[in-house]
Amino acid sequence: MKQLKATLDRIAPVSRAHLRAAQEVIDNKTKPRGSLGRLEEIARRLCAIQKTSKPSVERRCIVIMAADHGVADEGVSAFPKEVTAQMVLNFANGGAAINALAKQAGAELLVVDMGVAAPTGAASVREVRIGPGTRNMRRGPAMTKSEALAAISAGIEIANELADRGIGLIGIGEMGIANTTASSAIASVLTGLAPEELTGLGTGIDEPTRLHKAQVIREAIACNAPSADAPLDVLAALGGFEIAGLVGVTLGAAARNIGVVVDGFISSVAALVAVRMHGAVRDYLFTSHKSVEPGHAQVLRELGHPPLLDLQMRLGEGTGAALAMQLIASAEAFYREMASFESAGVSDSGK
Amino acid sequence: MKQLKATLDRIAPVSRAHLRAAQEVIDNKTKPRGSLGRLEEIARRLCAIQKTSKPSVERRCIVIMAADHGVADEGVSAFPKEVTAQMVLNFANGGAAINALAKQAGAELLVVDMGVAAPTGAASVREVRIGPGTRNMRRGPAMTKSEALAAISAGIEIANELADRGIGLIGIGEMGIANTTASSAIASVLTGLAPEELTGLGTGIDEPTRLHKAQVIREAIACNAPSADAPLDVLAALGGFEIAGLVGVTLGAAARNIGVVVDGFISSVAALVAVRMHGAVRDYLFTSHKSVEPGHAQVLRELGHPPLLDLQMRLGEGTGAALAMQLIASAEAFYREMASFESAGVSDSGK
Repeated sequence: MKQLKATLDRIAPVSRAHLRAAQEVIDNKTKPRGSLGRLEEIARRLCAIQKTSKPSVERRCIVIMAADHGVADEGVSAFPKEVTAQMVLNFANGGAAINALAKQAGAELLVVDMGVAAPTGAASVREVRIGPGTRNMRRGPAMTKSEALAAISAGIEIANELADRGIGLIGIGEMGIANTTASSAIASVLTGLAPEELTGLGTGIDEPTRLHKAQVIREAIACNAPSADAPLDVLAALGGFEIAGLVGVTLGAAARNIGVVVDGFISSVAALVAVRMHGAVRDYLFTSHKSVEPGHAQVLRELGHPPLLDLQMRLGEGTGAALAMQLIASAEAFYREMASFESAGVSDSGK
Repeated sequence: MKQLKATLDRIAPVSRAHLRAAQEVIDNKTKPRGSLGRLEEIARRLCAIQKTSKPSVERRCIVIMAADHGVADEGVSAFPKEVTAQMVLNFANGGAAINALAKQAGAELLVVDMGVAAPTGAASVREVRIGPGTRNMRRGPAMTKSEALAAISAGIEIANELADRGIGLIGIGEMGIANTTASSAIASVLTGLAPEELTGLGTGIDEPTRLHKAQVIREAIACNAPSADAPLDVLAALGGFEIAGLVGVTLGAAARNIGVVVDGFISSVAALVAVRMHGAVRDYLFTSHKSVEPGHAQVLRELGHPPLLDLQMRLGEGTGAALAMQLIASAEAFYREMASFESAGVSDSGK
């Protein structure tokens, strides 16, 4: 709790002075004013986040956190629970989508086992393991409050470690069979929307299973009855170890002036929990894409940033974050490398 | 005319067998079916375009064609005409947005002077120079038919040269003060929509200038009265040397089984002219982004591909194409590198 409080105390809104100064630099670049659209907003915000006129995202990292969920026992997913561990091993062996996409994005990958049912033992997987998966939230809280705090702390420590290593941009991704169920439950409490509105087909369930999933979520919320005003309680009651860990990474990154590239629905729910803990976290977020999971659009609205991409994806793992990182790196590149009207000898329109 | 005909004769729709075979490979990758959304469509189409199960976009090139426009004399742009040549020099010196973004996209840049008022003399600029800019289309055809054909031929030859050098993906971009005016005129004839609906603020004109610009376009169309069924006539009457050159690059790329990443409004109009010359060209196009220029949405609809990005950009130069190339390279990467369920030992949902 002490570490969480210290981290929250360090988080501050980004400075308007840096935003303005960056826009002035951008307006002198050899292009019509505003013509790079959202890339300009990204470049501006990178300056403000890093409190500099020379931001760098050259070193970037995607943190994937994985964990199992007790609620998987309720038959809410298209895939068996073993797939969580199998995919962690797949990440470790370089065979998953995120391995290919992170490489393209020039990002290193940090795979964290926050509590998969059975440890994979792979050397490249960081083992934090709050437990062998959460308890079934339909019958009681998924985590104790101290488990949730331990997971958040682990995330904060990872963000600090990455900050110390000079990482300039952190992507967050996840893996956990049944974690859209946990995320829809958290989103339902935090947004006040009905579970049915936020519950989708996850990795590929059918419509009867979707209705069953919404009912499970409804019962889990009724059973735990967390208050929307207490995000830590909501997280403990309905979350997963990987979601709590990503809340910590997000808070830790914001506290260290590092931008966070949010992936899909589950990562966005983690980011929303972080924002509810400290509103200024919003200033540090880049929302990478809009997934087809119906709850995502609602959560993105709460986060207050329109997504950079809409490619009809629904994979998680940080795959959308990896794609968006390339856009963010491109924004940083134009800001760093472009000539000014004066230096290039190009006539300005004056507009 | 002979080269154009030979090129058109070589263009064929991509094979459905390759699309199906690629989807089968994708469906065995360790992810829920369809969960990479539009990246899957891109990977599938790269296979079909290149007629292979191992497509490569490792070597990529963005071709920027520049030219001046007689219609600039009508006061339709926010920038003076000299800016075309100044920007070509800026490309040559590495100071423009596209220099930074192409580097990020791992793409080489080929800058072609198709007819800027005064040649820049920069060593790295390819000089084709059909003439020192087009004539004012408000008073007669912008180009003769043989000028249009020469520009198309030059584009075809560049595509052939890039194909011979092993380039796997070609982006098209442009520079030319007043070329949104030319493009809106072509789009108006080819889509049947009124100039007012297709005419936007270009690089930053005000509303009275926009109305004036639409009126100039209306008069240019009335003066030349080209038939929508004769795309070459439309191009000659209302086009620019750089637009005609990009029509050639697009046709040449399709004829050599290379995908074309279309940039913004002007490049999309060039792609539309190519599609009207041969419908199968459509299969080879990737539409990178939706610009804020209002005609662009209409032209994209005609091209039949939803844009990959919507970042509120309106710069041209191939900047949107450079960003989209990174997504296309990511699609190729997941297709090439991801493990199958069997090889990774991951349980499939069977769905």
